[in-house]
Amino acid sequence: MALADELSCLLGRRGWRSPPNCQPWQRDWLNQSGEEPLGVAMPASTAEVTQILKLCHQAQVPVVPQGGNTSLAGGSVLGESGGVIVSLSRMNRISSPDVESGTIEVEAGAVLANIHSGLEGSGFMLPMRLGSEGSAQVGGLISTNAGGSHAFRYGMMQDLVLGLEVVLADGQIWNGMRNVQKDNAGYQLRKLFCGSEGTLGVITKANLKLHPEPVQHVTACVSLPDFNSASRLATSLRREAGDFLTAVEFFSDFGLEMALAHIPTLRFPFSERAPHYLLIEVSSSSAKVPLEDILNDVIERAFDANLILDGVIATSLSKRAELWRLREEQPEGQRLAGPQLKHDISVSPGRLAVFLLEAEKICMSILPGVRINPFGHIADGNVHYNLSPPLGQQSFAGQEAEFASQLGELASEMGGSFAAEHGLGRTKVWLADRLRNPVERRLMTNLKSAIDSTRNLNPGTLTASLKLVRPVI
Amino acid sequence: MALADELSCLLGRRGWRSPPNCQPWQRDWLNQSGEEPLGVAMPASTAEVTQILKLCHQAQVPVVPQGGNTSLAGGSVLGESGGVIVSLSRMNRISSPDVESGTIEVEAGAVLANIHSGLEGSGFMLPMRLGSEGSAQVGGLISTNAGGSHAFRYGMMQDLVLGLEVVLADGQIWNGMRNVQKDNAGYQLRKLFCGSEGTLGVITKANLKLHPEPVQHVTACVSLPDFNSASRLATSLRREAGDFLTAVEFFSDFGLEMALAHIPTLRFPFSERAPHYLLIEVSSSSAKVPLEDILNDVIERAFDANLILDGVIATSLSKRAELWRLREEQPEGQRLAGPQLKHDISVSPGRLAVFLLEAEKICMSILPGVRINPFGHIADGNVHYNLSPPLGQQSFAGQEAEFASQLGELASEMGGSFAAEHGLGRTKVWLADRLRNPVERRLMTNLKSAIDSTRNLNPGTLTASLKLVRPVI
Repeated sequence: MALADELSCLLGRRGWRSPPNCQPWQRDWLNQSGEEPLGVAMPASTAEVTQILKLCHQAQVPVVPQGGNTSLAGGSVLGESGGVIVSLSRMNRISSPDVESGTIEVEAGAVLANIHSGLEGSGFMLPMRLGSEGSAQVGGLISTNAGGSHAFRYGMMQDLVLGLEVVLADGQIWNGMRNVQKDNAGYQLRKLFCGSEGTLGVITKANLKLHPEPVQHVTACVSLPDFNSASRLATSLRREAGDFLTAVEFFSDFGLEMALAHIPTLRFPFSERAPHYLLIEVSSSSAKVPLEDILNDVIERAFDANLILDGVIATSLSKRAELWRLREEQPEGQRLAGPQLKHDISVSPGRLAVFLLEAEKICMSILPGVRINPFGHIADGNVHYNLSPPLGQQSFAGQEAEFASQLGELASEMGGSFAAEHGLGRTKVWLADRLRNPVERRLMTNLKSAIDSTRNLNPGTLTASLKLVRPVI
Repeated sequence: MALADELSCLLGRRGWRSPPNCQPWQRDWLNQSGEEPLGVAMPASTAEVTQILKLCHQAQVPVVPQGGNTSLAGGSVLGESGGVIVSLSRMNRISSPDVESGTIEVEAGAVLANIHSGLEGSGFMLPMRLGSEGSAQVGGLISTNAGGSHAFRYGMMQDLVLGLEVVLADGQIWNGMRNVQKDNAGYQLRKLFCGSEGTLGVITKANLKLHPEPVQHVTACVSLPDFNSASRLATSLRREAGDFLTAVEFFSDFGLEMALAHIPTLRFPFSERAPHYLLIEVSSSSAKVPLEDILNDVIERAFDANLILDGVIATSLSKRAELWRLREEQPEGQRLAGPQLKHDISVSPGRLAVFLLEAEKICMSILPGVRINPFGHIADGNVHYNLSPPLGQQSFAGQEAEFASQLGELASEMGGSFAAEHGLGRTKVWLADRLRNPVERRLMTNLKSAIDSTRNLNPGTLTASLKLVRPVI
């Protein structure tokens, strides 16, 4: 029997889609990549995942695991037609949290927003916050080691994963569903699977670490004369309000302009525009902390030092949400404004100001007039360094790879990363091959071969496939 | 030229010791294992480490990296004579901290206590605290993924490592000395090397993440009628003082008795003895937090609920140190009391009370009258479950492996770990082979082969060597 028929028999009508009914899974979120699959498998259990992987392994047909398909690097779709997409979306059970231990067990297809809402009232939260939480699934979040706005305080996904269940390329199950922070009985497999982008196994289940839900939040937005001031304010915040600092997000006036122009429901909180803005949030799980007072203090001293032009503080839920939208709608504003190039850079927080200066010089020398929209997470040095074409133009004059390469090189020279949050996927493998040293790339290829010896899982993602990898940006 | 002569020429008089001058490095801290080496290499630079590894690789002579040699699992000494111990102790440079970014660069041989003292006055700290910090070195802390008393709040060593430099088995250098929290450009190599116990490479340098130094601490010690009460109090503390909770350490009256009997400088703070004790520490980097008030509140409510028998609160440095010694001298008290068996268990914090009940039953059935001294880190469920022989006896009647096996099995069944902090080393490899599923052990063997294909680095540690591995406890 042909593989498609076998899978169809195994999984039934709800569990198997053949072309042309694969469209919602076939293309990536940016609609930049994704070839036609043999079909989309939608298993309902770990046992079914095992069967799927066994059959595909026998037939040597590539498998790409897919969660919410919100990846920005093309790692959740096929680079060549004919493979099988395994969508985990039907495996979406969320257990009751263990409130004595502060943990929760979830299946890979659980949507992040559903975990958040399920935890309401439990006194605990999963501190993973990002724009796509309405569709991002746990398996994808783990596979891409998601970061988001709260990572500075609570860590990335790898810091929240206590245990994992993973189906390996040949269908064997690794049951690593332990439930403890401390486990030094061998190599840190659970960490290795975080960020492995579906190239080592299909994550089916996880035990996650929860944190106490804060009982109070204070959110502020300030406008600043230059990025240096933002950087100095962030340093003060880390030092003086570090126990409470949930987010320090920055965005530029150009980004704000695009967001305000295309998203009419946004409200600008100041009387005058300024070059830069910071969104600051502090929170505490103790009601006895004078949170507003602590934040006010840092901000007032920044005013006195002329680091800040204007500022607003919000404590109510609705006002806080209004301020957050200014930052969160940055990607959508730029998307609606037309063509764009996305880069996902990190450098150490103290060097971010220097990076932005140097990066601007590089961009202007590659394509004079290109418009720069840097925004992101200042406390951990992560900048989404997005570009729009020069005014009146609709393209980047074929310089896409040049931007990625030179900006990535600058970040690397400064001890940073050219793929901070979004991973390599398919679109940045060539960049890793160019910017990371050969020893590192060889280590990664060896790891891949050690765990997926036939290179059946998500080939072309993360390490170079055996075939030539070309820039696809 | 013979390998010993080549290494001697390369490293000079300060850099090479031959038997019989290898004693200080040859045996482990517990004096339980360690065969005679060909010699001890003490390189002064990464370049020298490279040369050593190249020569040993060519000669196929095993290499064991060694830091402060405070391992409790025999992973820093030789299982068979004739290998080379590489002591990193001369590579001990500590850079000035980067206070803008909150990071520090250190060489592998830097002693933890020296890093702490070097950071005094900088406003930052490295939140890694453990009994052996006067001799433990960074390379060893990373290789064993050290935990310690502050891990609940700040994480284990893997959570503090931003970048690494590692010399691989064949002498090639992996330069992963990046300086950022967010780096998703491929597999998390830096995490994989944490806890790899010298079996994948020799760590020579690291960039570490610092945290703001607290400006206030409050330490309390309370006595409790039973472990259940300790567990319930710890849950309240995590929920209501979680932002500030640096340590929640527990110990038993039996442990206290041994410590008081053998360490006369200890002071018992209560008028009456009790079955259990908790040492609680909260700290904040903001002076505006009413820390004592917050802690008092939780403790008073615990009094009202009859969870606590007595309590003292200390804010002065000397009083705090006095309380800490009660907990920190537990291992030394037991060592001085005579023969002991150490087990290093973790289960999720909410299940620790059940574990202790079940574990006691197991111990009593194996050797009636055996005396149990559980102490450790209640907030992350980590218990050092140490045993002394029944009163009047000097041995465990040959039941050593049976204790390890049955206690480890209980922890595993509860979703925990039988090697929470101390690693597998040489002494627990057989236990991992017995208690961890074959798929997991195979993944680990494959990883080892992928990175150290000739199995030259620390053979017999972590994964089984090609030879038979026997219980060595």
